[in-house]
Amino acid sequence: MKLWDKGLPTNEKINQFTIGNDRELDLVLAKYDVQATLAHAKMLCKVNLLSDQDLTAITGALQKLSVQIAEGTFVIEEDFEDGHSKIEFELTQTIGEAGKKIHTARSRNDQVLVAMHLYLKDELQQIKTLVKDVSTTLLDLADTHQEVLLPGYTHLQVAMPSSFGLWFSAYAESFVDDLYVVNAALQIVDQNPLGSAAGYGSSFPIDREFTTQELGFETLKYNVVAAQMSRGKSEKSTAFALSSIAGTLSKLAMDVCLYMSQNFNFMSIPSEYTTGSSIMPHKKNPDVFELIRAKCNVIQALPYELTLLTNNLPSGYHRDLQLLKKNLIPAIQDMKASLEMADYALQQVTVNKSILDNSKYEYLFSVDTLNQLVVDGMSFRDAYVKIGKDIEAGTYVPIKDTKHTHIGSINNLGLSHIKAKLSSV
Amino acid sequence: MKLWDKGLPTNEKINQFTIGNDRELDLVLAKYDVQATLAHAKMLCKVNLLSDQDLTAITGALQKLSVQIAEGTFVIEEDFEDGHSKIEFELTQTIGEAGKKIHTARSRNDQVLVAMHLYLKDELQQIKTLVKDVSTTLLDLADTHQEVLLPGYTHLQVAMPSSFGLWFSAYAESFVDDLYVVNAALQIVDQNPLGSAAGYGSSFPIDREFTTQELGFETLKYNVVAAQMSRGKSEKSTAFALSSIAGTLSKLAMDVCLYMSQNFNFMSIPSEYTTGSSIMPHKKNPDVFELIRAKCNVIQALPYELTLLTNNLPSGYHRDLQLLKKNLIPAIQDMKASLEMADYALQQVTVNKSILDNSKYEYLFSVDTLNQLVVDGMSFRDAYVKIGKDIEAGTYVPIKDTKHTHIGSINNLGLSHIKAKLSSV
Amino acid sequence: MKLWDKGLPTNEKINQFTIGNDRELDLVLAKYDVQATLAHAKMLCKVNLLSDQDLTAITGALQKLSVQIAEGTFVIEEDFEDGHSKIEFELTQTIGEAGKKIHTARSRNDQVLVAMHLYLKDELQQIKTLVKDVSTTLLDLADTHQEVLLPGYTHLQVAMPSSFGLWFSAYAESFVDDLYVVNAALQIVDQNPLGSAAGYGSSFPIDREFTTQELGFETLKYNVVAAQMSRGKSEKSTAFALSSIAGTLSKLAMDVCLYMSQNFNFMSIPSEYTTGSSIMPHKKNPDVFELIRAKCNVIQALPYELTLLTNNLPSGYHRDLQLLKKNLIPAIQDMKASLEMADYALQQVTVNKSILDNSKYEYLFSVDTLNQLVVDGMSFRDAYVKIGKDIEAGTYVPIKDTKHTHIGSINNLGLSHIKAKLSSV
Amino acid sequence: MKLWDKGLPTNEKINQFTIGNDRELDLVLAKYDVQATLAHAKMLCKVNLLSDQDLTAITGALQKLSVQIAEGTFVIEEDFEDGHSKIEFELTQTIGEAGKKIHTARSRNDQVLVAMHLYLKDELQQIKTLVKDVSTTLLDLADTHQEVLLPGYTHLQVAMPSSFGLWFSAYAESFVDDLYVVNAALQIVDQNPLGSAAGYGSSFPIDREFTTQELGFETLKYNVVAAQMSRGKSEKSTAFALSSIAGTLSKLAMDVCLYMSQNFNFMSIPSEYTTGSSIMPHKKNPDVFELIRAKCNVIQALPYELTLLTNNLPSGYHRDLQLLKKNLIPAIQDMKASLEMADYALQQVTVNKSILDNSKYEYLFSVDTLNQLVVDGMSFRDAYVKIGKDIEAGTYVPIKDTKHTHIGSINNLGLSHIKAKLSSV
Repeated sequence: MKLWDKGLPTNEKINQFTIGNDRELDLVLAKYDVQATLAHAKMLCKVNLLSDQDLTAITGALQKLSVQIAEGTFVIEEDFEDGHSKIEFELTQTIGEAGKKIHTARSRNDQVLVAMHLYLKDELQQIKTLVKDVSTTLLDLADTHQEVLLPGYTHLQVAMPSSFGLWFSAYAESFVDDLYVVNAALQIVDQNPLGSAAGYGSSFPIDREFTTQELGFETLKYNVVAAQMSRGKSEKSTAFALSSIAGTLSKLAMDVCLYMSQNFNFMSIPSEYTTGSSIMPHKKNPDVFELIRAKCNVIQALPYELTLLTNNLPSGYHRDLQLLKKNLIPAIQDMKASLEMADYALQQVTVNKSILDNSKYEYLFSVDTLNQLVVDGMSFRDAYVKIGKDIEAGTYVPIKDTKHTHIGSINNLGLSHIKAKLSSV
Repeated sequence: MKLWDKGLPTNEKINQFTIGNDRELDLVLAKYDVQATLAHAKMLCKVNLLSDQDLTAITGALQKLSVQIAEGTFVIEEDFEDGHSKIEFELTQTIGEAGKKIHTARSRNDQVLVAMHLYLKDELQQIKTLVKDVSTTLLDLADTHQEVLLPGYTHLQVAMPSSFGLWFSAYAESFVDDLYVVNAALQIVDQNPLGSAAGYGSSFPIDREFTTQELGFETLKYNVVAAQMSRGKSEKSTAFALSSIAGTLSKLAMDVCLYMSQNFNFMSIPSEYTTGSSIMPHKKNPDVFELIRAKCNVIQALPYELTLLTNNLPSGYHRDLQLLKKNLIPAIQDMKASLEMADYALQQVTVNKSILDNSKYEYLFSVDTLNQLVVDGMSFRDAYVKIGKDIEAGTYVPIKDTKHTHIGSINNLGLSHIKAKLSSV
Repeated sequence: MKLWDKGLPTNEKINQFTIGNDRELDLVLAKYDVQATLAHAKMLCKVNLLSDQDLTAITGALQKLSVQIAEGTFVIEEDFEDGHSKIEFELTQTIGEAGKKIHTARSRNDQVLVAMHLYLKDELQQIKTLVKDVSTTLLDLADTHQEVLLPGYTHLQVAMPSSFGLWFSAYAESFVDDLYVVNAALQIVDQNPLGSAAGYGSSFPIDREFTTQELGFETLKYNVVAAQMSRGKSEKSTAFALSSIAGTLSKLAMDVCLYMSQNFNFMSIPSEYTTGSSIMPHKKNPDVFELIRAKCNVIQALPYELTLLTNNLPSGYHRDLQLLKKNLIPAIQDMKASLEMADYALQQVTVNKSILDNSKYEYLFSVDTLNQLVVDGMSFRDAYVKIGKDIEAGTYVPIKDTKHTHIGSINNLGLSHIKAKLSSV
Repeated sequence: MKLWDKGLPTNEKINQFTIGNDRELDLVLAKYDVQATLAHAKMLCKVNLLSDQDLTAITGALQKLSVQIAEGTFVIEEDFEDGHSKIEFELTQTIGEAGKKIHTARSRNDQVLVAMHLYLKDELQQIKTLVKDVSTTLLDLADTHQEVLLPGYTHLQVAMPSSFGLWFSAYAESFVDDLYVVNAALQIVDQNPLGSAAGYGSSFPIDREFTTQELGFETLKYNVVAAQMSRGKSEKSTAFALSSIAGTLSKLAMDVCLYMSQNFNFMSIPSEYTTGSSIMPHKKNPDVFELIRAKCNVIQALPYELTLLTNNLPSGYHRDLQLLKKNLIPAIQDMKASLEMADYALQQVTVNKSILDNSKYEYLFSVDTLNQLVVDGMSFRDAYVKIGKDIEAGTYVPIKDTKHTHIGSINNLGLSHIKAKLSSV
């Protein structure tokens, strides 16, 4: 991007620098802009700032654009600085003067804001569904493999018995926490900013409750300065929600990558989901899970980028805010693809059913054995001495038949409770 | 901290390195550890792993510790590696063998977890109250100063009329969004992890629902591996909530610092809340607001630190998790102090009532004047030309009497709506 | 990116997920891959693993690719997962079996590594030049406007006299510090990783010193495991350097945005570099500087993203590393564009020569006036009292004729010293 | 820290809020403040702003303070807001009016700046030495264990033969890169900011070259505004250097934690450096390495905190800058302790000499075996088919006797080259 070397005229240089990849990103937002523009037009008509005829013309033109967007034939040419100007241009082209009136009592600022709120609300709801899907898969896997034991680690040292039932369902219950954060983000974006104009409202007698209802927002962001300040805040809150999910999913992927190593050999996925080597027949590289981890880690950096973009800026619009969507929109796409891919790949997993046959895991059961002696009446002190001596003497025989009874334990997973949490969130 | 230069014996070196400032931080957690230990003891008694006599002894000893903690006489000496071992030691000292039995079916891991959850729940509720307090102050100030106009800026350029009414209440409504994130964090910590032991549960027949009810948790974290994984997740979720509030408060402080500059001169605070200079009589440095901003900016870095601490660690406990509290506890204290200080200092603010008398703000009203012509029937195009000519000719007379009617605008602040949002969150 | 909804076959889904936008990014790297491939071929020939004939064929084919890349006609089709496979394919297509031999003693890992090192070295050198260019412009501006006074602020409060000479050249000297960090990054990437293969070297008798010399690297990264670990480290070090520059440039842009506000009115840029408003004739929005600030703030988040991507990964290659270039390459492009744009826009700035005529800046000179009395023999205490009384009585007359003598002060800018620093870095 | 609940008078509340833990941190800076104060006094005397008598008095008083600081008897009482005021107070107490004159031509701003630069320079040099120490230990270990083979991993999958020689020395060579960043930070702090006063210089005829030489700075930060801007920049540059080292050390610690797991069993450290379990005799938890990793990960978050603190602040001093040292000083201490501890603990490591006896590592050698056939004249295609068939037929016999010849490979570590790099950096 050597602007000055290209012999471009100055305006062109400035244009390239200021526009960036807005056209590409705005393809994603176009649908929501059309939706909000229609609600705005209806409202203008209701308060007599637009005639019925004009409204009919605008509605028709917007519906045509809607179809183009849905069919993927809507294009933002290089002549336009963003999708919003393209939509305005189309309106004016199609219906003339009526198209220009759509700007009454609106500014680019609240036009972008309301489209972004609608977009984020839609995506957060989709992401919520995807998180529930992968969680349901995990609960099913936990149910299927609940009898298969795993070593439980602390400090990466072999510690206590665990199981695939515990391990799979642990991530399902963890995802519920992430959905609380998603819900918070949803509450934040589910407020109508339309009518805040450039951040200081309008002297036109607009009806903001009407557009709120028309667009299906739960409430409106009343204060127009607050509405403008939701630019950045909505994006950051969404990023916190993504980051929360990504933290859980990244950890799951790290576990899988470790468990697929020959040094663990706890699970495998079919060859077609791994990458191999032209020469090393033993290589089954878990690229899919590595990339889930990596994408989730990139997503976790997003809140910091958005914070840096907006921090210490005084109130009121700044052009900086234009860059908010640059990495947010790809992050949303990566989040969805990672959840879908995780859901799909987890269903292909084969678990190793004889992990604990290896002698290095024998000591896993020493605590349970000791506890049993205590429950049977021996004092803790005596039981401890006995087990210790048995181990030293090589006579320690692990009782591998775990009988944990409390809720959430290896033999009482409480999957229905976790399912209930997941449904109610 | 030149460990090796001090001629310390090796064990001592390792100790210093591994313990850090845990003793100091654990003073904050002691209260919650005692509370959870009592609930655990009652449960052990209920399931017959502890006699009634032992429970009575333990209850008495814990109550004594409770009083010490409340009175500030509880001390964690250098002999103890943390507050939890100190509490155990005291129990054993006071009541002998019975004290040792408190460990049955518990590990340090879930002991710390449950204390941390109780602590975070308590602090998040306090913070919620403080955010509501400062928001109420802001709404009161908006009400009081709603007639006083301010220039509204976009791109830091004078743009449209705003007011102290709009400005103060905008921050109140913004804080409501932050409370949604606080609520999410509260849901995440309001789950009982006790009974997860070292992260893989216990073979003792414990009753986790009992301790859940006893400790006032909304629900329990059922899956023991999920409970262990909430270490880190709870802290990060709290950090997201703090970060959200801090972003809003930092922006408010930035505005105040700007508005107190001689180049704006929009507001002032009494000299006793400013720092001056021994020689420059005009200096009234807004240190309080600068430090609110700075502390809030440090808080906003916390999620990143906690993410780095926990990211890419496979499941199961790691000693790394010990450092989670190191900067979280001070951040919580700074958050509370900053909210209290903001609430207090805002109440001392004097606003400048004649800001818009300055001629540089005249053009603020050009849009309203034009809109009025449109509403009165002139076409937009003609109105635009007329105002443009008036400005050029120097005959443009701003109509400074704004009459915005829509909800959330300069003349219709909708404070009661914001108040209602604040109450219901 | 709803992978599973598209009815795609599984392999295609996996492909889309794993490839990402590699093809686009690899267009940037192709030039360096060709360069390194040629050096590798020459080395293979030198150690008799490739015949002279094969080398001639390979050289010819690579030169053809070089021309295509330089002319912008090199295309990476959707059939290829990245640019490296495309280049290999072209070789094999053009020259048959000889093309396949280029892989001897090389793996994709060190192929990517060496191309990335060459790329980063080239870009860091270009960035260094751009930083020097903008610094030279700043020094020229300082020289031109050295007589024009500015208020100096502390706490955003009017404090002491400053000048455009001081302000412009301060940023030039600050950029020198950033270049020290650029130099460190250059040292890190100026080491040849070629020959490390998959991170564990090769059993072929390759000559790594030869390729080091051939490619113009200062030295080689000897240890093959260290060479592999430079993946991630090189990128992070580059990100630190970018971040350092971006911090300085962002601050400069913040100053300009403030100084262009009507509340400061210290400087302006011609209308064609600002965005206006269709209705507010006073609006001259400094979008260019706002976007410089914003892009620089996004760049400053990059190190944290790269840290999160690589942190807590054990040694050895992981597929995660593929994502390192995803935001690094755009960041490098944004850094260069921002520096070019800043250099250009600064040259268009008009400074306000009568800022200090405004009475609100009078007290700026009180310290100088007092100091003068002290130098003239009055005790500090007496001088302080006198000035204080003069101010109170309204008889204080500021001596606006500053006569600072020490190096680096308002009247002795030391521009030649800064120029010398800039040359020698 | 419930300021308002304590019934404190307002001033006291403000004080507590604004002072923070400055007193504690300033104990670390006191030594450097005394050193810079002495140089400043000598300079004032040289330019006749201080009499010889006064200089003698000041020198004597400062030397007394120096001794107190060195002996650890220097205390900053609660009456003082920071260490700098305490030092001034002591001067005035001891020598009366002469003590007050030390302030001539200096402000708190450049006083703190110069002390911080001296402090950072000293610490960075110490850290450089510690990095060289641990690197030398790693090179010694590489030399000692160069014959002991390790599996090399890619994607955490067993891939190619590696060795302890390669692994240990890889980290030594990686640390060299970090030292380039340390050197950049050293260049940045090795510039004298004294004389910049409040950031706009002084009207006194001070001699800044004199203090530069007196304090042993390489050069001075000429421009006084640039000098003030080095507040924040010096700290961030230091944080980049710490972060760079921490990234390498954290990765090393991650490897060790993995390699000490029973699933790898590559190395162990004596029991006294591990933590065990009261009941699980197999537990040897590598807490020391986990805490090195954790502390290093916290350090890696520091640049982000410092960036957030300073970003988007216009030029000139802000009180925010006071918080720069809050986490930087502890980070420096943790960095040093972590390096010392790593150096110490690595020397205690025992390596497992028979790792590759396990059959799961056999395929490590397939590439070498194939390469040998190629070198011996077989075509790659035929060799590949032969090895593949051998593996399938179970007749593949790994040649475990690696004979890599190129520099930096398993059998030609090039330790002397790495040593040379380490010396010259």
